[in-house]
Amino acid sequence: MSGSGDQSSLFPSDSGSGDSLQLPELWLQEPGPESDVVISSRMRLARNLDDFHFKSRFQEGECERLEVHLSQVLHELEPDFRYHRMHELSPTERKVMFERHLISREHAADELPRGVSFSHDGTTSIMVNEEDHLRLQVFASGLDLERLDEVINDLDHRIGSQVNYSFDPRFGYRTSCPTNTGTGLRVSVMLHLPTLSFRVDGRTGRGSEQDIVRMQNAAQQLGLTVRGIFGESSRADGEFYQISNQVTLGRTPAETVKGVQSLVEHVSSWERRNRDSHFNENRRRVEDHIWRAWAALTHARRMTSGEALSHLSALRFGVCLGILDEDEIDLAAIQSLMVAMRPGHLQYTADTELTADRRDELRADLIRGALQNN
Amino acid sequence: MSGSGDQSSLFPSDSGSGDSLQLPELWLQEPGPESDVVISSRMRLARNLDDFHFKSRFQEGECERLEVHLSQVLHELEPDFRYHRMHELSPTERKVMFERHLISREHAADELPRGVSFSHDGTTSIMVNEEDHLRLQVFASGLDLERLDEVINDLDHRIGSQVNYSFDPRFGYRTSCPTNTGTGLRVSVMLHLPTLSFRVDGRTGRGSEQDIVRMQNAAQQLGLTVRGIFGESSRADGEFYQISNQVTLGRTPAETVKGVQSLVEHVSSWERRNRDSHFNENRRRVEDHIWRAWAALTHARRMTSGEALSHLSALRFGVCLGILDEDEIDLAAIQSLMVAMRPGHLQYTADTELTADRRDELRADLIRGALQNN
Repeated sequence: MSGSGDQSSLFPSDSGSGDSLQLPELWLQEPGPESDVVISSRMRLARNLDDFHFKSRFQEGECERLEVHLSQVLHELEPDFRYHRMHELSPTERKVMFERHLISREHAADELPRGVSFSHDGTTSIMVNEEDHLRLQVFASGLDLERLDEVINDLDHRIGSQVNYSFDPRFGYRTSCPTNTGTGLRVSVMLHLPTLSFRVDGRTGRGSEQDIVRMQNAAQQLGLTVRGIFGESSRADGEFYQISNQVTLGRTPAETVKGVQSLVEHVSSWERRNRDSHFNENRRRVEDHIWRAWAALTHARRMTSGEALSHLSALRFGVCLGILDEDEIDLAAIQSLMVAMRPGHLQYTADTELTADRRDELRADLIRGALQNN
Repeated sequence: MSGSGDQSSLFPSDSGSGDSLQLPELWLQEPGPESDVVISSRMRLARNLDDFHFKSRFQEGECERLEVHLSQVLHELEPDFRYHRMHELSPTERKVMFERHLISREHAADELPRGVSFSHDGTTSIMVNEEDHLRLQVFASGLDLERLDEVINDLDHRIGSQVNYSFDPRFGYRTSCPTNTGTGLRVSVMLHLPTLSFRVDGRTGRGSEQDIVRMQNAAQQLGLTVRGIFGESSRADGEFYQISNQVTLGRTPAETVKGVQSLVEHVSSWERRNRDSHFNENRRRVEDHIWRAWAALTHARRMTSGEALSHLSALRFGVCLGILDEDEIDLAAIQSLMVAMRPGHLQYTADTELTADRRDELRADLIRGALQNN
């Protein structure tokens, strides 16, 4: 693999397209703690201002006034952050920002005046007029909740010193949807669990559907959820899962972070044990699975994102097992491809409307180019 | 591909295994006329001796006597040919000979005294006590019926000068099964027809099931048959088909040869036209199909013979279309792999009983080793 460290060429560049969108760096390129199993950590706070109605009850012009107000507050607090008004961006640009996790799918699709402020390194973003007046988000590669907790609390306090947060002494922070009321905190960790659902030749590996269901039931009892990262179903494309808290009321932020952290650690060590025994017992099958994924990624001329995701998952597994040489391909490169191959990114780079067929072709070209020297 | 010319290392060597079997060279390594579409030509004559009963009516000891008699006749006629008695060979050795087309499946499995004589170059073999007393076979790479006709007639006359062929002035040569009576001649040509059944992503390419059925109906009216080479079904693994005559009565050998030749030429030019237009209209899909086949063959750690055949078929198509570089991989190499990867050959090389799982592993190793330099 050529230049596995710097994947910047994979991505739409800041300049050149002639519009105002400036994309941040890709923080996922730096593998974080426990990166063999944990892809990334995210914390989010939902906040609303006392002096404005909730979004569902906005009066005439209130939404626009709030957006202007908050954009000014954020600009004064974080002058280095970039601020974009959503309606000034094209649908493709909004899609790219969604694929970078800077904004939610809903924020990309909404029609009301709204915006987003984000740091140059892409690890902090603040949505204005999403479901709540403010949605603060911080990201880290790997498992890094303690640090994220400090970062988001600092940000929260600094913003809170400039605006009046809507707060109920008994319930905590008031939110647009009651499921967030209290801490307004969502802690999510994305995990790569290939052995959990590893299947070769139609045979079940060590993990099984039952393991997932068991894990989900255990999580639920702790006020947490485990779900496939690409959809709500229990079967995750590419074997990526998200563990997050479901409860925001009657539990402190510290307890919430601790709960997620402890389930993640439990699942991670379970996954590590499984990887070892699974590989030892099915060495040929695992090698076959991983080399075929590598082969398809480096040779195909068309590839859907579902297939690519599944192969990239196998590559990640192969690097962690030492089957693939980390000097040739590293986790950062795989991580970068997972973002760069998404439809919005492909479309943004091509700077033109693309059919699904054409996207499959460009995706194959992009991946082949990144993984091969020729 | 390393040494695409000389594939001898792929095959069990003559010496070393300590037994008596001596395998001939692989004549398929030399591409013959029309090799872009035609893999090989074969002619076979069924002959019986007047002085012995048909196989189904052998008296006590007659079968053994006939085998001894014919082995002597053949030895005197062709002293350079190798002669093997079937019961002196192991089941694996017989399987290897079947996979080399030297003997039929029935001849490999039979229990009666029987044998086979074959030339060093493997292009001629004579089975003794197969369904008929004598089965003369000659092979050529590509489409080469005229030459084969000369070779087999010469052999037929020379044997006929030493024994009394059972011949009926009205019907012709008498045979064990009436479907061969008359000329006793079977002319078969193996074709590679990828566009006939080319399917990508579940979509039908130019060819279709209907084309095959149409071709089969046309052939039948000419007293010919078209069938998948690996089974009687109309869908051929790997898109290999065989055209052969069905009628042996009331038609001269020359007419039979001419009939097969003319249908083969018709189908070949149809296939060539289809290849061009199919490739032009589906360039990406075809390239994707071929590169994925190459990728799987050069990376997999386990592979069934069905999958390998299908990929090798795609490789062959890719070489003919110029997508794959003929300096890197040529038709001869593909042809050799098609034989070397078969179960009997794998087992013979390993010199031990192999499970299907283990064969899949050795097959993948063999193919990967042959197609890659590393």
